[in-house]
Amino acid sequence: MRALTVTLNAALDVTYRVGALRPGATHRVTDVAVRAGGKGVNVARVLHALGVPVLATGLAGGGAGAALRDDLVLSGVPQAMFPIAGETRRTVTVVAESGQATLFAEPGPSVTSGEWSDFLGHYRELAAVADVVVLSGSLPKGLPVDAYATLVRTASVPVVLDADGSALAAGASAGPAVITPNRGELTAASEVDDPLALGAAAALVSDGAQGMTAYTCEGVWTAAPPEVITGNPTGAGDAAVAALVAAWHLPWPRRLAEAVALSAAAVRAPLAGDFDRAFYDQHRADITPREVHED
Amino acid sequence: MRALTVTLNAALDVTYRVGALRPGATHRVTDVAVRAGGKGVNVARVLHALGVPVLATGLAGGGAGAALRDDLVLSGVPQAMFPIAGETRRTVTVVAESGQATLFAEPGPSVTSGEWSDFLGHYRELAAVADVVVLSGSLPKGLPVDAYATLVRTASVPVVLDADGSALAAGASAGPAVITPNRGELTAASEVDDPLALGAAAALVSDGAQGMTAYTCEGVWTAAPPEVITGNPTGAGDAAVAALVAAWHLPWPRRLAEAVALSAAAVRAPLAGDFDRAFYDQHRADITPREVHED
Repeated sequence: MRALTVTLNAALDVTYRVGALRPGATHRVTDVAVRAGGKGVNVARVLHALGVPVLATGLAGGGAGAALRDDLVLSGVPQAMFPIAGETRRTVTVVAESGQATLFAEPGPSVTSGEWSDFLGHYRELAAVADVVVLSGSLPKGLPVDAYATLVRTASVPVVLDADGSALAAGASAGPAVITPNRGELTAASEVDDPLALGAAAALVSDGAQGMTAYTCEGVWTAAPPEVITGNPTGAGDAAVAALVAAWHLPWPRRLAEAVALSAAAVRAPLAGDFDRAFYDQHRADITPREVHED
Repeated sequence: MRALTVTLNAALDVTYRVGALRPGATHRVTDVAVRAGGKGVNVARVLHALGVPVLATGLAGGGAGAALRDDLVLSGVPQAMFPIAGETRRTVTVVAESGQATLFAEPGPSVTSGEWSDFLGHYRELAAVADVVVLSGSLPKGLPVDAYATLVRTASVPVVLDADGSALAAGASAGPAVITPNRGELTAASEVDDPLALGAAAALVSDGAQGMTAYTCEGVWTAAPPEVITGNPTGAGDAAVAALVAAWHLPWPRRLAEAVALSAAAVRAPLAGDFDRAFYDQHRADITPREVHED
């Protein structure tokens, strides 16, 4: 199983440690941590940690784009990010000694039509040697709303699409293997109750701390995490996508259990793209999906 | 008059616009502005705007260092920043719609002894073709406390030193032409009342909104701004230093008047390194320094 992750709106995630955040004041930052981010990058990081061969692609530009590549190289995650002229967005999270986290997200670059067209050629070559493709996150400015539909159709292998809003609706209509919205995103994107009405072959729908439900042509299963998990929910969805990919050839109830377990393990880790491996190893066998018989 | 400005701890100043700053929340940044900063860079920017030939040097490294150079090139300010391996510090100022500004200042890079030694060679060559040298701001980690003393002694032309704490005390002992502390910095650095006891030939001491006093071997003069100025005091001291340099060959009372006028004009401009030119042109002749006869 060789996976290709695509992050069109990748980010450089910067964390500042300060004593306390006081609006209007000047703060001496005591520690700066910089890390490659964006949903598809997080998926690639988790897959790499699980030992699944993965290549991270997407768009990256400017100083932040260079730092993003450097961090992936340092992390050992294979990458083939495609260069653009615009500056990759940064996110700055200010973490106070109390643990309070305040996030500032830059708007991100605009992508030209020429860059998008060149990226499609790059993507076509990478997708041709992958077994599964993962498309994650928002679309940067300048891309057509059906960008994900184009990427789904260009790949001749199964595609997992993790997006929301119009990018999800347009992308799902091209028939990906799985979409992975949370319940709110699904309701916003579709007027009908059936998650498969959007066009995907299957849907893994998250209900947050309550667990996840897999809607497939073979049946519908639901599973809850082994216990109430507190922590950082950022990256939990990306871990669920990574679990889906890592368990690709297992039956759906098992894939669902893996997604719930790895997602919970990700909530227990402070950084998106990491997971609590001991918790995952301890609990992945405990989770027993329940088949849902819908009327 | 060719000036060389030296900024050993330069910064990339980033400004984020947000609706309102709410600790603990996620903020969508609506606009990102990036600008080369650091006190000596601000001095160079003001001198360039005044039409005084200037070259900006100092230490710059990493992605932030590259962006700093790029911005100087874009601004037309001649630069010969010296490359270091460490990442130049960023400052992030979050400006809310209310005008409230919250600043986060990164700690900055560590400089190796080899880099410092190589920079000294670079500096020696640049200082040899300058008429005046300006040394501004804090010392990055890794530099000796007497770094400014070494730079003062290496230059065979007059030096203006704008620093505080131990960097000011050690640098002033090497005999620069002028030091430019504010009253608090002066009190912290010297145990005696005479500002010239630190070792400089002259001292331009700021009392903030009350004005400035020039202590020289020819006499002591004081001057107040033309009116009460409200605005952004960041960069006002750098504008005063630029005025001193631009008016180098004028008598001290005139140089003091220029420093007070340009400093007030800088408070009226939103960004450090800019000044309100109309205000400066209108008021620079109004300011009449008063000689202080000390007992």
